[in-house]
Amino acid sequence: MKKIGVGIVGAGTVGSGLIQILLEKRQDIAKRSGVDLELLFVCDKNNSIKQTYPQLGFTSDYLELISNKNIDLIVELVGGTGIAYNIVKDSIKAGKTVVTANKALLSEKGDELFSLAKENSVEIGYEAAVAGTIPIIRSLKTGLVANEFKAVYGILNGTTNFILSKMEKENWDYEKALQVAQDLGFAEKDPTFDVEGIDAAHKVSLLTGLAFGKRIDIKDIYIEGITKISQSEIQTAKQLGYRIKLLGISKMISGNIEARVQPTMVPLKHSLASVMNEMNAIYIESDFAGSLMFTGKGAGSLPTASAVASDLVYYGSRRGNHDCFEDNIFDKGNIIPHGQETSRYYIRFNTVDKPGVIAEISNHLGKNNVSIASVRQDESESEPIEVIILTHRCKEQDVHRSIEVIDNLSIILKKSVMLRLEDLH
Amino acid sequence: MKKIGVGIVGAGTVGSGLIQILLEKRQDIAKRSGVDLELLFVCDKNNSIKQTYPQLGFTSDYLELISNKNIDLIVELVGGTGIAYNIVKDSIKAGKTVVTANKALLSEKGDELFSLAKENSVEIGYEAAVAGTIPIIRSLKTGLVANEFKAVYGILNGTTNFILSKMEKENWDYEKALQVAQDLGFAEKDPTFDVEGIDAAHKVSLLTGLAFGKRIDIKDIYIEGITKISQSEIQTAKQLGYRIKLLGISKMISGNIEARVQPTMVPLKHSLASVMNEMNAIYIESDFAGSLMFTGKGAGSLPTASAVASDLVYYGSRRGNHDCFEDNIFDKGNIIPHGQETSRYYIRFNTVDKPGVIAEISNHLGKNNVSIASVRQDESESEPIEVIILTHRCKEQDVHRSIEVIDNLSIILKKSVMLRLEDLH
Repeated sequence: MKKIGVGIVGAGTVGSGLIQILLEKRQDIAKRSGVDLELLFVCDKNNSIKQTYPQLGFTSDYLELISNKNIDLIVELVGGTGIAYNIVKDSIKAGKTVVTANKALLSEKGDELFSLAKENSVEIGYEAAVAGTIPIIRSLKTGLVANEFKAVYGILNGTTNFILSKMEKENWDYEKALQVAQDLGFAEKDPTFDVEGIDAAHKVSLLTGLAFGKRIDIKDIYIEGITKISQSEIQTAKQLGYRIKLLGISKMISGNIEARVQPTMVPLKHSLASVMNEMNAIYIESDFAGSLMFTGKGAGSLPTASAVASDLVYYGSRRGNHDCFEDNIFDKGNIIPHGQETSRYYIRFNTVDKPGVIAEISNHLGKNNVSIASVRQDESESEPIEVIILTHRCKEQDVHRSIEVIDNLSIILKKSVMLRLEDLH
Repeated sequence: MKKIGVGIVGAGTVGSGLIQILLEKRQDIAKRSGVDLELLFVCDKNNSIKQTYPQLGFTSDYLELISNKNIDLIVELVGGTGIAYNIVKDSIKAGKTVVTANKALLSEKGDELFSLAKENSVEIGYEAAVAGTIPIIRSLKTGLVANEFKAVYGILNGTTNFILSKMEKENWDYEKALQVAQDLGFAEKDPTFDVEGIDAAHKVSLLTGLAFGKRIDIKDIYIEGITKISQSEIQTAKQLGYRIKLLGISKMISGNIEARVQPTMVPLKHSLASVMNEMNAIYIESDFAGSLMFTGKGAGSLPTASAVASDLVYYGSRRGNHDCFEDNIFDKGNIIPHGQETSRYYIRFNTVDKPGVIAEISNHLGKNNVSIASVRQDESESEPIEVIILTHRCKEQDVHRSIEVIDNLSIILKKSVMLRLEDLH
């Protein structure tokens, strides 16, 4: 049996879940994996852990873990890109294997940290950084190792999926759904990071490296959050046979990468549409294995700690394999600039009630190479009249350009709304 | 870079896909995983491979691979429990790592082979034996290593899922759907192994070991195929909000195992219901990670070869780790005898058209402790009248017993049909 000494830095939500798991399940984990994970030391600012688990070593100085020769593997669960960066760097330099759930850190400083790890012949595990319990990183690196990927679509943020689900099912507006998410602990007091799509974008940057072997910066990703989604779009989408999901998308198109986070209309019959509430999901298209989908909890103390534990076992078992390293150092990817990507689109125009409106709109769309797949205008007693258009596949900048022109026409009473539509099968 | 010499025995459908993958993707696989898989030798009865790939060693005698010192890992793709058993046994004895897709062999002789592997300090990979491309074995052993499992539900056989999907979507009867499946290569000429649920049962026995650490024999599994499923049940299920799927089910209930393969009514809104055609899926309930679902192709040359390649990388990277073995030797599980398990049930009674029929049926069900959740009887112009009953959770033998009594009443014109219903959330 291989014995791995473990130290944890950060005993917050995930850290305390991990301590519980490692103490309760040590025997079971060892039997399943052949790796005996011995939790030796916990480092935290708050010493309440010391009282709860007197059998564990405790310190408020992470350097104590770094200098401890019995610790093979350090788990960084502090979060953020400040002290967490030092913890990971110092651990690597001391020859420790590192496991982290810190997507922001890896998305921003991954290149430097993975290079440092390579120099020091250690590995960094980050299964918990993307989609919580879903073993997506292990699957991309091992389970699907032989495949070339065409596209990765993910519901990567539980907070926004919960809000969108509640808006649809309960007919709540965005503010009410956010409030409930906050009350239930699914959203932070300041929800910006989640609702504006930044958290999902960090994960898209990590998935792009794993799937396509290309590094992209978060600033290269087109990001649109869910704060502007209204009941009107949610209900209309459903009537048209779609559901709005905040999708993180990364595609390889003729050697270039399209990377985006945005509210997207997904066909109701596609499995991604049935992923509700705080669940996460990832849908992958590959050459040999075809299409795969993974669904599971994306956050929470024990679910995330479960993903961390899987890294402890995996990288623990590989520790000392000095001739066998996973490569996480990727060339910079060539990004398709925003506007140049093609897709199908949903547009809602808010118009006056008079003849010729649809002809005028179609005319301007046509001039800008936006071809209409379907038009829908229901009877209405009062203005504005909603004209809903689904386009065929076209260039996004053509859609933007035509909306800009149309919104300045006298037939338009209110700014138009545009959403991307992914015709997934 | 760790170099692993690979030999393949059996160059049929999966074997030839694997040869293609290993030759085309060697560099990519090495970069992702840190393992350089060098395909050295192929063994097959048919020497057409020799012409197609003159650069590879070729033999029709597998012992040549066993005695080759440059071969670290042997892939057994012959299938069946005859010569395949000798190939695996001899490979292990020679200290080779073994990778196989042979569910029948492992389900029947796994205990002996895993023990032999342990004695010889080698491992056996079998990712491709369950649910094709879906990395379910890696996920249960590593990704979810910290979890205790409550239940595993799987659509584990693509042939039967294809037939059931076509029966619903195209309104075909079973025979027509089977014929089309055979024409498309989704079903064998003799489809017994698939349509009678035996293939799925082999996978249930492997999943039970992985999830619960318990060994069960295939003869301990209650198996029911799809040959008796009629249009009537498929359409009625849909009207009631369910879809019939051939599910492999393994549950741990108070230390005992319930293991079954049978056509099951699954709620339409559950993700398992949306897995159509030849796709496979596995839905897992666990303590820490909660519920997870995985969907992907269950068969085919390249999809299965992709799963085999993942084992080559994983067990290749672990080769020589003499202190770290996954344990596949399980104690015998205690099976809940067929009839003693509880579930909800669907029953269709075919009755005469006269007053008092439902009262008489309900009366007999009640006497046998079968409690009714809903009754449905549509207007009909001719006999038999269909009385559809969904029960609350009850013991299966109570349902059998009451149907036996009711089917002998004069109000019944035709044998009743019973299906299990799983209220998955």
